[in-house]
Amino acid sequence: MAEVEDKPVDEKSPGTEADDAFDDLYGLTEEVADAVDEALSANDQGRIRDLLEPLHAADIADLMERLTSGERETIVDSLGKDMDPEILAYMDYSVREDIVDYLDTDHLASLVTDMETDDAIDLLEDLDAADQQELLDALPADDRLIYEQGLSYPEDSAGRLMRHEAVTVPEFWSVGQTIDYMRSDESDLPDDFYNLIVIDPGRKPVGTLQLSKLLSTRRPVALSEIMEPDPKLIPLAMDQEDVAFFFRQYGLVEAPVVDDSGRLLGSITIDDIVDVLDEEHEDDMLKLGGVHEDDFYSDVAETTRLRFSWLLVNLVTAILASLVISAFEATIEQIVALAVLMPIVASMGGNAGTQTLTVAVRALAVNELTTANAMRIVLKEILVGGVNGIVFALIMGVIVWLWFGDPMIGVVIAVAMVVNLLIAGFAGTMIPLALDRLKIDPAVASTVVLTTVTDVVGFFAFLGLAATVLL
Amino acid sequence: MAEVEDKPVDEKSPGTEADDAFDDLYGLTEEVADAVDEALSANDQGRIRDLLEPLHAADIADLMERLTSGERETIVDSLGKDMDPEILAYMDYSVREDIVDYLDTDHLASLVTDMETDDAIDLLEDLDAADQQELLDALPADDRLIYEQGLSYPEDSAGRLMRHEAVTVPEFWSVGQTIDYMRSDESDLPDDFYNLIVIDPGRKPVGTLQLSKLLSTRRPVALSEIMEPDPKLIPLAMDQEDVAFFFRQYGLVEAPVVDDSGRLLGSITIDDIVDVLDEEHEDDMLKLGGVHEDDFYSDVAETTRLRFSWLLVNLVTAILASLVISAFEATIEQIVALAVLMPIVASMGGNAGTQTLTVAVRALAVNELTTANAMRIVLKEILVGGVNGIVFALIMGVIVWLWFGDPMIGVVIAVAMVVNLLIAGFAGTMIPLALDRLKIDPAVASTVVLTTVTDVVGFFAFLGLAATVLL
Repeated sequence: MAEVEDKPVDEKSPGTEADDAFDDLYGLTEEVADAVDEALSANDQGRIRDLLEPLHAADIADLMERLTSGERETIVDSLGKDMDPEILAYMDYSVREDIVDYLDTDHLASLVTDMETDDAIDLLEDLDAADQQELLDALPADDRLIYEQGLSYPEDSAGRLMRHEAVTVPEFWSVGQTIDYMRSDESDLPDDFYNLIVIDPGRKPVGTLQLSKLLSTRRPVALSEIMEPDPKLIPLAMDQEDVAFFFRQYGLVEAPVVDDSGRLLGSITIDDIVDVLDEEHEDDMLKLGGVHEDDFYSDVAETTRLRFSWLLVNLVTAILASLVISAFEATIEQIVALAVLMPIVASMGGNAGTQTLTVAVRALAVNELTTANAMRIVLKEILVGGVNGIVFALIMGVIVWLWFGDPMIGVVIAVAMVVNLLIAGFAGTMIPLALDRLKIDPAVASTVVLTTVTDVVGFFAFLGLAATVLL
Repeated sequence: MAEVEDKPVDEKSPGTEADDAFDDLYGLTEEVADAVDEALSANDQGRIRDLLEPLHAADIADLMERLTSGERETIVDSLGKDMDPEILAYMDYSVREDIVDYLDTDHLASLVTDMETDDAIDLLEDLDAADQQELLDALPADDRLIYEQGLSYPEDSAGRLMRHEAVTVPEFWSVGQTIDYMRSDESDLPDDFYNLIVIDPGRKPVGTLQLSKLLSTRRPVALSEIMEPDPKLIPLAMDQEDVAFFFRQYGLVEAPVVDDSGRLLGSITIDDIVDVLDEEHEDDMLKLGGVHEDDFYSDVAETTRLRFSWLLVNLVTAILASLVISAFEATIEQIVALAVLMPIVASMGGNAGTQTLTVAVRALAVNELTTANAMRIVLKEILVGGVNGIVFALIMGVIVWLWFGDPMIGVVIAVAMVVNLLIAGFAGTMIPLALDRLKIDPAVASTVVLTTVTDVVGFFAFLGLAATVLL
């Protein structure tokens, strides 16, 4: 029964069909969103409750993200004490902040108590010190201890990511004993788990056991016979990015987290890793675009502030490039065509460099670019820059010759183009490699350093050559 | 036993410790890589086999990615018939292509037969038509049927992503019957699975059942009592990006794939979704950087070719911006300072626009930017651009006044700066929104359109204003 029988599929236009399918699966359709909007305008709390009742917590979170602060409060009031704590877990942190501010401490405490420990810690860590303490004080004592423990681990570490509810079994048990234990009331099992962690008497993990394996094995068999021995153990202090790397690398679904002496503290599951991957990818992408953190849900003042510092850095580098131009003012005064053409050389260098840079930052992030192959990659990128440089030099040389009727300006721009694209290939790989070696995030600083290099080199090569050759 | 006891953690410097931990977990340490290098130089196949034997397939794949084509062939020869087919599944496609070319058809066919269907289809789809047919002909008839079926589904669809080995049980079974069936020899279970799919007599899924739930329930209970009813059903034609969205949105680990009539065809598991997420994110990041596809492992010729077209598009837009400058040649001839300053206005607009664009492309990708909030976001970005525009106008106005001793040039650059940052905020959101509406991938085309806009507007506003006010 494991094999599914084959059946030919009708060929249909995938476009509209897939869109329909999307709406069928996604609880938060436009109709529902519009109906909620209407109910909000009418301030009809009963109707709001009815509309939200069939929705998944993740869809309610999405809906609330799209609303104004006042509308979110009406939703919270409508849901009242029945509000599913999962809604907070699924919500973007800046929107959650808004809701957390609105809720009274007792209600918030009761919501947090019902969350999984990792979600609760995720909520607690975003609060400012005073609010965090107030909320912790309102929690039952043993929960508080777990959360304070969790918060004591470094941010973005495995310790923060793990949940304390790992399902453990001693290695001398049989399959039958294990299943009986799991069915009994003494086991307080978490909602989702995929592995059992087999431990020795000192609570050190000695193996993991997939539930599918347990289910397909007969009762008398000992766990030690069917478990995966030598499990991959995640140290408490490991950075979440590295944890995600290992989950992907080894196709893990759940892995035990241990302290320095190798004792089990909790476990990390694949669903948390999906979130980490998403967070890290978002981070890389935004940083490459010069955005400090996701400000999609931030207000105008906050967004302006977050974007400002990057623009300021950029202003300084743009002025630096202008100083290069300013050194050739006399040359430009004599041949204005140079002012017309110089942005082309800088722009081509910037774009070729950005291509190289993007590939290098990505390769660094997934551990593909290492000291072992660094020199080969740098050489390759210089060659790519050189070949494309020569091609574009020819194209641009001819265009400029025809445009300004002077073959020598064509020669100047052609040579400058080759120089700048060679430098772009070199800088596009060396900059992220050097930043990575200096323990600076290559995604955040590479772009600005690169464009400074390609602008300065582009202007200097073009104008300097022009000053030497044409005057 | 589900709760793990708490224990204080030593505070240590996370840097070095985490690095050590990384090496402990990652099988492919530098020592191993160096030893393999040595064995390759000595052409010692026995030693190579001994070194690779303890490594995970994913680590061997990583190692081979870093080597030259000739070295990879030596590795393949060393492993011989014992080569783990998983190595091919974990490998970057361009490197895999290299290996597949080297292997003889019979060896390749035996490797493919041992792979999971989704991995095998992934390998087959990358082959050119003739090689694909040759390999298919070498496979056993019933395997071939499954693969041909899989290849008939649209690329990047749920059909390509799913595996045929779903574990199904009828809804009238009890927990006990289910476990007995799973233990029996008639069930040919896949290696990893997390859910059972409960089906009706017409093979339509009526529920899913987590293994953890099955294990913690007593034998006489009926599956229909403990299953999750109304499972999220993935249609065969759904785009893999949408499938990944639903897995994330609803925290799914495994979901059934159905045909148009709702009959079960196979299932998709979370590990495939992790790969899809990674692929989609890589895609967005590379496209924003003007890279068509990941060319990290491509050779110089191929990489040059892949990068060329984007640079050509960029050349055209750069020339467009130069034409704007060229219209003001007479003005620049009289005030050369304009040539020095004009790149600053264009560059600040380009950077502010890129910030906005990056956030917008990301928000579109995760379905956060919708028609419902589009106008609010556009307005917000224009305001952010305006506020930062005014701040940088003041900074730049004063700098230019002091630099060139002429307050009027300061006023001109200040006004041009505000104009260009307002336009950058507007264009940075409107361009990706418009491209998305036109069904063009916003990640691939937004950047080039945006920088064209900010260059043209920047040069035109600054030089045009200067021509009017200063002459």
